[in-house]
Amino acid sequence: MSKLTTEDFVQGVLAGDRVLLARTITLVESNAQRHFEQAQEVLGKLLPHTGQSIRVGITGVPGAGKSTLIETLGLKLVQTGHKVAVLAVDPTSSISKGSILGDKTRMEMLTREQNAFVRPSPTGGMLGGVARKTRESILVCEAAGYDVILVETVGTGQSEITVRSMVDFFLLLLVPGAGDELQGIKKGVVEIADAILINKADGENKVPAEAARAEYNRALHYLTPATENWRPRAYTASALEDAGIDKLWEIIESFQEKMTASGAWQARREAQQQAWLHTIIAEQLQQSFYTQPAVQDALPELETAVRQNILPPTAAALKLLQIYRKSSPLE
Amino acid sequence: MSKLTTEDFVQGVLAGDRVLLARTITLVESNAQRHFEQAQEVLGKLLPHTGQSIRVGITGVPGAGKSTLIETLGLKLVQTGHKVAVLAVDPTSSISKGSILGDKTRMEMLTREQNAFVRPSPTGGMLGGVARKTRESILVCEAAGYDVILVETVGTGQSEITVRSMVDFFLLLLVPGAGDELQGIKKGVVEIADAILINKADGENKVPAEAARAEYNRALHYLTPATENWRPRAYTASALEDAGIDKLWEIIESFQEKMTASGAWQARREAQQQAWLHTIIAEQLQQSFYTQPAVQDALPELETAVRQNILPPTAAALKLLQIYRKSSPLE
Repeated sequence: MSKLTTEDFVQGVLAGDRVLLARTITLVESNAQRHFEQAQEVLGKLLPHTGQSIRVGITGVPGAGKSTLIETLGLKLVQTGHKVAVLAVDPTSSISKGSILGDKTRMEMLTREQNAFVRPSPTGGMLGGVARKTRESILVCEAAGYDVILVETVGTGQSEITVRSMVDFFLLLLVPGAGDELQGIKKGVVEIADAILINKADGENKVPAEAARAEYNRALHYLTPATENWRPRAYTASALEDAGIDKLWEIIESFQEKMTASGAWQARREAQQQAWLHTIIAEQLQQSFYTQPAVQDALPELETAVRQNILPPTAAALKLLQIYRKSSPLE
Repeated sequence: MSKLTTEDFVQGVLAGDRVLLARTITLVESNAQRHFEQAQEVLGKLLPHTGQSIRVGITGVPGAGKSTLIETLGLKLVQTGHKVAVLAVDPTSSISKGSILGDKTRMEMLTREQNAFVRPSPTGGMLGGVARKTRESILVCEAAGYDVILVETVGTGQSEITVRSMVDFFLLLLVPGAGDELQGIKKGVVEIADAILINKADGENKVPAEAARAEYNRALHYLTPATENWRPRAYTASALEDAGIDKLWEIIESFQEKMTASGAWQARREAQQQAWLHTIIAEQLQQSFYTQPAVQDALPELETAVRQNILPPTAAALKLLQIYRKSSPLE
């Protein structure tokens, strides 16, 4: 990669240059300190041009048909004048090597569209790091003029909560005929969804899909809605037969309309930004603590003593904090 | 208070001396640094004598009949040879001046029992501080020979999750005929309960109580059990008519039996201890950060910039961490 200036990145992104968009995201995703600093400079300059998109989170286990749904929805949106970016948060990718968006042959048609941008999950690092990279990639895509950002994730519980904290609307994709446990979906995920879509409602799956829809509507009745003044419902769709996809987009648009009118849209975004700030602070403080060699040396023994009821947790914590403060160099 | 040595506290508690038990808890609850240090010494010596109780968390809004239920249950337990301690976690008490256990006339009969110990919620400080004090009070009571610890709290959502993290069994108390919202119970609280008790199932409340029981059993069907291999159920009870209280204790005992046999009991306790250690570390790190004057000076402006999309959260966080590190004195 030739050496680009901050201004090169900024101008390239603002001009909607896809190559520079991709390189800016690569910069944002880099773990090198000098890249990190330049990325923050670039983001600072792009920031006034961000925020003008609908951010939609989509989750579902492998096999729920996320890729096909995203491709079908994405193509429709591109055809009606939208610019669509697809990003991924995949905390498992470093282990399983790309369980989502990793396969280059997926979303082939969408990838070929001029007004679509598909980016696999950043690799390496913990969920916290992946979350930062994805949040910042959303901003870069927005600055490049993308007005629909689809953030795909895979159902592990924690990654959904992370994605929920960076999107406006959150969709849970399920398939009929499988119990929750079989689908690997944590029940808590149902609670953070603004809509549930029972996918693959085609052929002999139509009847079980309807049954699942009714079942989930009953379940949703018992749960606190993820978004105030929005009643999440279950719907059926078939990406294969192109059924229910238009309806899905109508729901998302009506969500945006209602939430924008009430001020909830802006309020959630501001709260998300602020929460993100404090998340980074907490993460950095803990990272500084837990990566400190003296703390790492002392921790296992103290943890064992606490588990075995030999040392009270408060005493063990104070001991570790003392070790940390004694050894931590000031910068 | 005359000056007691660490050994005075330890021996008094181990002898089951109620006055010294109360004074040890006062020591644990003190916010003074020198008391804090002595309390940790005392706890360290008591620790080998702890852990031999059933720890039961009980929540419900004011009016659900928590006090009457706890008194009825407590008296029964005392009569069958148990030693019962009642503690409270009340994050609202500093504001509303003792909304639970604050009224001296409550649990009057139980308080008079030689083998019962009733302690109001520690006042002052945030939930985190109250949580530490209550966790440590549990240990002190166990060392004094109490084999049933009832931890009462009031439904705010967060305090229940805190209590859930320090008890073996968690009971949600509801009354019939009121919707969830009316009862002020966050729906998430249903998910952390090992049992739901519909209280005040007497007189003309009997029929609505039965209906509520059936309704909650349906709701529980959709939720992940709080404890693995334990199916939470809803029951009815009347503390007034002494109905359902024996059954409640049978459920708690069968829970203990099943979980002890499977190893889940010990595993949860160890996990709780370890989580507590890391909670204290995270709290202390954040307290050190957010109470630092230079950070407090800079925070409001940076937070506003983040909310208004003028500064990226990562950049704002790094700036604050830099300010913190520059001004933080090493101890």
